[in-house]
Amino acid sequence: MESMGALRRTHTCNELGLDFLDQETTLMGWVLRRRDHGGVIFIDLRDRWGITQVVFNPEINPAVHAKAHQLRSEWVIAVRGRVAKRPESMENPKLATGAIEILVDELRILNTSETPPFPLDEDVEVSDTLRLQYRYLDLRRPEIAKNLILRHQALQTVRTYLNDNQFLEIETPMLTRSTPEGARDYLVPSRVHAGKFFALPQSPQLFKQILMVAGMDRYYQIVKCFRDEDLRADRQPEFTQIDMELSFITEEEIITIVEGMIKALFKEIRDLDLQPPFNRMTYDEAMRRFGTDRPDTRFGLELVDLTETLRGCGFKVFNTVIDKGGMVKAINAKGCGAFSRKDLDDLTEYAGRFGARGMAWIKVKEDEWQSPITKFFTEDEIKAMAQALDAQPGDLILFGADTAKTVHQVLSELRLELARRLGLIQGDSFNFLWVTDFPLLEYDEEQKRYTAVHHPFTAPNEAQLELLETDPGAVKSRAYDLVLNGNEIGGGSIRIHSPLMQKKVFKALGIETEEAQEKFGFLLRALELGAPPHGGIAFGVDRLMMLLTGSTSIRDVIAFPKTQKATCPLTEAPSSVARKQLTELHLQPDWKEK
Amino acid sequence: MESMGALRRTHTCNELGLDFLDQETTLMGWVLRRRDHGGVIFIDLRDRWGITQVVFNPEINPAVHAKAHQLRSEWVIAVRGRVAKRPESMENPKLATGAIEILVDELRILNTSETPPFPLDEDVEVSDTLRLQYRYLDLRRPEIAKNLILRHQALQTVRTYLNDNQFLEIETPMLTRSTPEGARDYLVPSRVHAGKFFALPQSPQLFKQILMVAGMDRYYQIVKCFRDEDLRADRQPEFTQIDMELSFITEEEIITIVEGMIKALFKEIRDLDLQPPFNRMTYDEAMRRFGTDRPDTRFGLELVDLTETLRGCGFKVFNTVIDKGGMVKAINAKGCGAFSRKDLDDLTEYAGRFGARGMAWIKVKEDEWQSPITKFFTEDEIKAMAQALDAQPGDLILFGADTAKTVHQVLSELRLELARRLGLIQGDSFNFLWVTDFPLLEYDEEQKRYTAVHHPFTAPNEAQLELLETDPGAVKSRAYDLVLNGNEIGGGSIRIHSPLMQKKVFKALGIETEEAQEKFGFLLRALELGAPPHGGIAFGVDRLMMLLTGSTSIRDVIAFPKTQKATCPLTEAPSSVARKQLTELHLQPDWKEK
Repeated sequence: MESMGALRRTHTCNELGLDFLDQETTLMGWVLRRRDHGGVIFIDLRDRWGITQVVFNPEINPAVHAKAHQLRSEWVIAVRGRVAKRPESMENPKLATGAIEILVDELRILNTSETPPFPLDEDVEVSDTLRLQYRYLDLRRPEIAKNLILRHQALQTVRTYLNDNQFLEIETPMLTRSTPEGARDYLVPSRVHAGKFFALPQSPQLFKQILMVAGMDRYYQIVKCFRDEDLRADRQPEFTQIDMELSFITEEEIITIVEGMIKALFKEIRDLDLQPPFNRMTYDEAMRRFGTDRPDTRFGLELVDLTETLRGCGFKVFNTVIDKGGMVKAINAKGCGAFSRKDLDDLTEYAGRFGARGMAWIKVKEDEWQSPITKFFTEDEIKAMAQALDAQPGDLILFGADTAKTVHQVLSELRLELARRLGLIQGDSFNFLWVTDFPLLEYDEEQKRYTAVHHPFTAPNEAQLELLETDPGAVKSRAYDLVLNGNEIGGGSIRIHSPLMQKKVFKALGIETEEAQEKFGFLLRALELGAPPHGGIAFGVDRLMMLLTGSTSIRDVIAFPKTQKATCPLTEAPSSVARKQLTELHLQPDWKEK
Repeated sequence: MESMGALRRTHTCNELGLDFLDQETTLMGWVLRRRDHGGVIFIDLRDRWGITQVVFNPEINPAVHAKAHQLRSEWVIAVRGRVAKRPESMENPKLATGAIEILVDELRILNTSETPPFPLDEDVEVSDTLRLQYRYLDLRRPEIAKNLILRHQALQTVRTYLNDNQFLEIETPMLTRSTPEGARDYLVPSRVHAGKFFALPQSPQLFKQILMVAGMDRYYQIVKCFRDEDLRADRQPEFTQIDMELSFITEEEIITIVEGMIKALFKEIRDLDLQPPFNRMTYDEAMRRFGTDRPDTRFGLELVDLTETLRGCGFKVFNTVIDKGGMVKAINAKGCGAFSRKDLDDLTEYAGRFGARGMAWIKVKEDEWQSPITKFFTEDEIKAMAQALDAQPGDLILFGADTAKTVHQVLSELRLELARRLGLIQGDSFNFLWVTDFPLLEYDEEQKRYTAVHHPFTAPNEAQLELLETDPGAVKSRAYDLVLNGNEIGGGSIRIHSPLMQKKVFKALGIETEEAQEKFGFLLRALELGAPPHGGIAFGVDRLMMLLTGSTSIRDVIAFPKTQKATCPLTEAPSSVARKQLTELHLQPDWKEK
């Protein structure tokens, strides 16, 4: 191992071309590949920016050539040499520096490397855990490194846009108060105050509202948030939000500002010229047509409601569901009439994962509707279905019959699966959709009370206020979600700024006055002291970056992601701590110590 | 309470002037002050940007005038009206909008306000806790709001500068591993893994080094860090760092890049043209001349070492100290010879706070050295002291005699106190100083072992490597701190990138191989797999902003600071949690439950 000595890097490995011929240059980086050819050693030298071929020729400098013989993959070197044109047959047009090479006159070996546990320059099958354990090696792969570079650029673009729009980035606390409404908190025991705990924020919701009461007018923050939930493939215990809040504002103005931000982002990262305004759809329409509040509108396969058409029909399964207040909906899988028995079994199995207890189907033929269930329907019913579904010979009709919730869950997922099977989703199209007019509350069967669809600070539709006491589930909110290709990438609302209204909503949520005071007293108090009308929105950065970079997992756009079991194989966090640390925090183990 | 209706804000309260005469405008904000004069109501309307006078004149619109009678302090209103020139005697040149007023034609009361618990427009004495409890009211005061606006601007300036210098902002985890080296960690119990804990990061040190091993080359992050320490006035449990790391780099290059950043920052925030390079001083020189590694170089009052001069002198107190290996140093408080007995008692008491067991002094008179201790010194000793201290009639000499540590602690603080008393510190001068060549290790009497002065990953001076085993305390490090007016605002170092060297340093720290593996195994492993030479630095944002804004406390530059007892009076964090939450985390109380 040598020091850099007097060498100072003059260029990156993506910078040199024919303009630099005969210039002296010093590059530093990693040995990506080594080839020995006719007594000459060729090294592909890699840094964050790219790759440059450096050449050790015994005729130029025999001592340096001899030294280069030691070099192995991932060794770290500094080379000083002269930029030369490559022989014509050796040019590599795929490489920015592919027209030149460096004839090396000085080599310093800055560090050696043991053989990496997996090769970096091939897309070999390596377990995710091993990749995360050696995350620094995986990050050397340009396709992963690129994601972090794009993430950096994206967030700086967002900042520039928001700064230009008079927003202030203001930091809110990480050590804050546990508020049981919402997901499970990560807790941080207090050492100074025995029996008391901080919570890591699930979002800076209350603080950003307080900042509006404080007169900050336009706030944003790109900020870590935390949820101690059981992890799904696309969730992380800590995640990053672009969080915004604005005063003296309406839905329309927020939507316009956000559309400008998204446009700037896609221009910068994808060089795409989006054309706002984006489409909009009410929650009711989204549920009716797509069975989900985040429809992927890049393709059709819409849901058709057959409940009224089939009320009293001869098919007992449907009839029972309808009698019990459930619904029957269907998707016309255009041109899928030739699906095999196995295809249908697969789809049925798939539907089963989302709660379907079987799946009825009909193949539309020229002369008949082929299906085990056709016989149960009258000719009128078949005609009415055909019309509602625009059924043509060669089509396949798939049914969902259950409670509305299950039907929507099953058919919305089946719709996505069909689109994947039929190749209806084109890789590079970005369909944005605002979903609006969400219900304010939904009834939670487990808790036997209404809960907030977004959060308890969302403003209700003012025209429906009287319903809050008589039919709470019917009240719409002033919330809006931004959906991209079937993914919710952002969500927000106009907030309640009247203390009276806030108390009414708490009441509708079954949060009685004392409890509301205990949990949210400081917000209620703030609303009494001159709170302006305000609203905001928050975006999930990880998912947004996944979509922007075309990655398949959010882990690919996070420098140090955790596993699905919420561990970090690199640092082996979480880990045991000294018993003394627990004692200082006034805690005892409630687990079996080994 | 009314909605905004069709009104949309067209201007801010700091925007309108004579250029806008007769234009229609809509403003929204808070009632700062109301004056009724000749049947006309004048409101100072305040928003984040400034203040505009709005006028309700019964002759313009009697209904609106009548409505305005309700308005009270801190009510939130929207007004639509016409820009008019103020009568000449009513102009207010102190206000950006002081030449105009708005003749209001439409008023909407967007929210009322109860009487605030303290008035906002006067600098009244209010307890800190009450101010933090109603932080949103305090933040409405322009002098506090201004700090948050400047903080925003400062951090965006830093980002722009670092982006332009090829840095990537990369987020590192908040839920990470407890590493007992360093301060006390905040712990986060894992629910999924019983008996395991995450720790909140004290700094992203290891992750940023890993990012260098990953080839990211230049990293930065403006990031929250956490230390569960007993709080001093200028500490917070969570604090923000500007954190940087660079590969293939030397101290000189890092210093140059940082100086550019600081220059950009002071230009943007203070409109000052700093002239790097900043002065530099070795640690040894700083300790010798100022008794501290973060000297305030805005004034003199340097420490003079009299140990050799007074070795074997007749003053027993000094002699004993010197015999025991301690030192005697003195400050010449120029022109303070007229200090009263009380002044001297005060200074002695002050010195006592920092460990002094008394304080010897001498007043230099024209004909004699007036002091209870003069009689113990020979004429030669007095002459030598006079020369070393450049003592002139009218001066006051203050002595420190103890271990080096105590003498430096006492005299460096006494020096600051003298400067304050003598008004030597001018408000608006910014003295930057790089302190370099720190010791790598210091002996910890409590732990009976060497500990790292910075952290265990700091590179030693390569020329002194052989001392690491024979005289570890003599080895200097490649660390550098940036000091501003006596405050350490940043610190960093070149890091160790050789696994062998890292193991040697761990050994010198008494961290034996197994423990090193357990704690830092992943770093050692990363160093074996192609780690580039690298180094970095981190800046404390809160302190930097305190100095930049001329605030007296870091709390004034933080949106939601905690008290000295690490509580948040606004949200009442930390708080009790449900017993069920503890059980889920596999923990039991070790405190007395009420």
